[in-house]
Amino acid sequence: MSDSRIIEPRTLKGFRDFLPGAMRARDWLLETARSVLKSYGYAPIDTPALEYSEILLGKGGDESDKQLYRFEDNGGRDVALRFDLTVPLARFAAQHINELGTPFKRYHIGPVWRAENTQRGRYREFMQCDFDFIGTESLTADTETALVIHDTFAALDVGEFTIRLNNRKVLAGLLSELGLGDQTATVLRSVDKLPKIGRERVVEELVAAAGASSDQAQSLIEAVTVTGNNDAVLAQIVEIGGDATAYGVAALRAVLDGLAAAGVPESRVQVDVSIARGLDYYTGTVYETFLDELPAIGSVCSGGRYDDLASLYTKQRLPGVGASIGIDRLLAALEELGKVDLSDAGAPILLTMFAPDRTPEYLGVANALRREGLAVELYPEPKKLGAQLKYADRKGHTLAIIIGDQEWEAGTAQIKVMATGESETVAHSDLAGECARLLGNT
Amino acid sequence: MSDSRIIEPRTLKGFRDFLPGAMRARDWLLETARSVLKSYGYAPIDTPALEYSEILLGKGGDESDKQLYRFEDNGGRDVALRFDLTVPLARFAAQHINELGTPFKRYHIGPVWRAENTQRGRYREFMQCDFDFIGTESLTADTETALVIHDTFAALDVGEFTIRLNNRKVLAGLLSELGLGDQTATVLRSVDKLPKIGRERVVEELVAAAGASSDQAQSLIEAVTVTGNNDAVLAQIVEIGGDATAYGVAALRAVLDGLAAAGVPESRVQVDVSIARGLDYYTGTVYETFLDELPAIGSVCSGGRYDDLASLYTKQRLPGVGASIGIDRLLAALEELGKVDLSDAGAPILLTMFAPDRTPEYLGVANALRREGLAVELYPEPKKLGAQLKYADRKGHTLAIIIGDQEWEAGTAQIKVMATGESETVAHSDLAGECARLLGNT
Repeated sequence: MSDSRIIEPRTLKGFRDFLPGAMRARDWLLETARSVLKSYGYAPIDTPALEYSEILLGKGGDESDKQLYRFEDNGGRDVALRFDLTVPLARFAAQHINELGTPFKRYHIGPVWRAENTQRGRYREFMQCDFDFIGTESLTADTETALVIHDTFAALDVGEFTIRLNNRKVLAGLLSELGLGDQTATVLRSVDKLPKIGRERVVEELVAAAGASSDQAQSLIEAVTVTGNNDAVLAQIVEIGGDATAYGVAALRAVLDGLAAAGVPESRVQVDVSIARGLDYYTGTVYETFLDELPAIGSVCSGGRYDDLASLYTKQRLPGVGASIGIDRLLAALEELGKVDLSDAGAPILLTMFAPDRTPEYLGVANALRREGLAVELYPEPKKLGAQLKYADRKGHTLAIIIGDQEWEAGTAQIKVMATGESETVAHSDLAGECARLLGNT
Repeated sequence: MSDSRIIEPRTLKGFRDFLPGAMRARDWLLETARSVLKSYGYAPIDTPALEYSEILLGKGGDESDKQLYRFEDNGGRDVALRFDLTVPLARFAAQHINELGTPFKRYHIGPVWRAENTQRGRYREFMQCDFDFIGTESLTADTETALVIHDTFAALDVGEFTIRLNNRKVLAGLLSELGLGDQTATVLRSVDKLPKIGRERVVEELVAAAGASSDQAQSLIEAVTVTGNNDAVLAQIVEIGGDATAYGVAALRAVLDGLAAAGVPESRVQVDVSIARGLDYYTGTVYETFLDELPAIGSVCSGGRYDDLASLYTKQRLPGVGASIGIDRLLAALEELGKVDLSDAGAPILLTMFAPDRTPEYLGVANALRREGLAVELYPEPKKLGAQLKYADRKGHTLAIIIGDQEWEAGTAQIKVMATGESETVAHSDLAGECARLLGNT
């Protein structure tokens, strides 16, 4: 400890500190999501950050392996940090579902770690918020998943948004109808590139890689890019895909009907047949969500229905449907929209301090205000008023309360509105009420 | 993927899953603490789970090293999982304090990892909630630290509790007065054992290890075990320790006066000179907190004042005071006190489902109730009523709503109170109001 060397304070590449402003925005985001999820009966769970590598690698291929923070622990175990919340859910469900019973609705908020390339603003530690409805094949659960997405984004202050819906069975039906059923993986990989490389090049790829005829490729692209209101889109799908798409179309209709009955505006839900969302995992409804003001940031909430969650860990079949809210993308979006208040004030009111011999009285006034439900920071030292007000200004306090010797004797307090510089004097007995009034007005 | 081998679903030793009941209790604990901290103007921050090992090892000796989850990442960096929130705070403060300014009040809630022996119910991953008031030597900050502890435990439903206060300068003064000033570390290590090995064996140790005379040892033990109300304890300290303890005693008095002025009942604060809390770090006020009903679980919130937080990472001196709430101990305590509701219900109301062709209407009713602020789980499938009510019973729903074909036609709904089995029929327009009334009553 006598070593006077200073260790350079720094974080690892791809990792970051959250300062108060950003942290409050994240907390608010998560609290909003949590509140909606609770209103639907989703229950919170948590799982360890570290798991046996065997558990985490069960599903992933080489790709996940490289991204894994994997090491040998002090007991010689092969362990790794979780890279998503889906694999831990599968392990959790296999382990506990008999105790919990089905249907089981859970949400899980927590950090995950990926040793990814940090270019393009990607982080190696980021927060996920997943929710899943497990143990039912009912489309009611598919509808509720969209409702949770809707209610969450309606509660967040991010402007208008669009939930894009598809059903993997519609795609499968179209491919089968067009004679491309045996090339599903290749075809979907190409279709996923539509927004990036455009229609023509996708057609070229389909011909070259999937062995489609030019006509087949054109028909497929026509089908997945139909536009119009949802009824029109579904009608066109049926026209092109026929009976093979009937189940998928009916399922989409059921979800749309449910959303309408629950009061979701039609403008916020758009059937989009081009959405495939990965190749293996999803089997039914799939979801993506875009902010109308910031479409370029990509989907901020995605998910879908799967046939069997936990087949790697149990023979019990667990169908379900769920989605994941992209907390970091949303946080970046909120900042871009200027909706993050980065001020540091932990409380709207700063109670300034003068006479140090009055410290107990200041503590008493502060706590009396807190008991009225007001959040108050008491400046800890009797510095000059100018310095304390400068502090309030920098930290972003809304009100400063000033009680000097004169005011103590008169039983009064000055309240200064920081934004305008205006101040007024009130009796101590009126202090809480007046602060509450001023805070309500600002 | 064609491999049909089942991977055994399990967690690592010392790690655990949180099922909904335990998770809700933890969320409630953290939300209560967060709410008190916000009312005092503490701001939230977060730091990465992984840091350079150099940063984390800066302070710790061999002990921490062995407890560290340390490894080389894919980029060849020597990294480790944080083992507490104090070292990350020191690094954070050194890095950001110029931007944040002082005084700076932060709280930090997050998991930490220690590769400890898992005997005695210790976990290798556990949640901490730390709060610190940095950049001031004012005793107002010491008082506020005790106030935050007080308000948090008063808000939690854990029965009566006692905050035990000491000041390291009182102990230092006593040792100096008794001629043991050069044996501080050895003496304090012995004194810390008082509750475990008792008075006689501590006296023996002091004579053997610290070279104290039997008289010195007796006087010291007498001083640190004085009892009575706080005034009496402080008076006895002054009598034994004289001027050497004057500053520490005055500091304790200032904190006690502040707590009284802020309305803290005297019964909840006890000066306890035997509390040393480690050897190096703390320099002033120290805190421990005990639940009166469960003293054996040990301190559930501890902390103290330090002279310099971040000397390893910056030359800027940062004095401060803070404490850490033992979330896992408290959670265990709440369970032991029978205050954790382990039911799984994510919402108090279950809306049962019959006619599947009415699904949109059920979704509509559920969302109408949610818009009135009620949390509602809609059963996703039209199973037999008995099965659905059994589900509500097992999950712990308070109310079940039943709307069959008859009710749909009459525009009514049955509300069943699960605990009593009583039910009543109301019009749809009265459903939200009646559910709210029944939930208020249960």
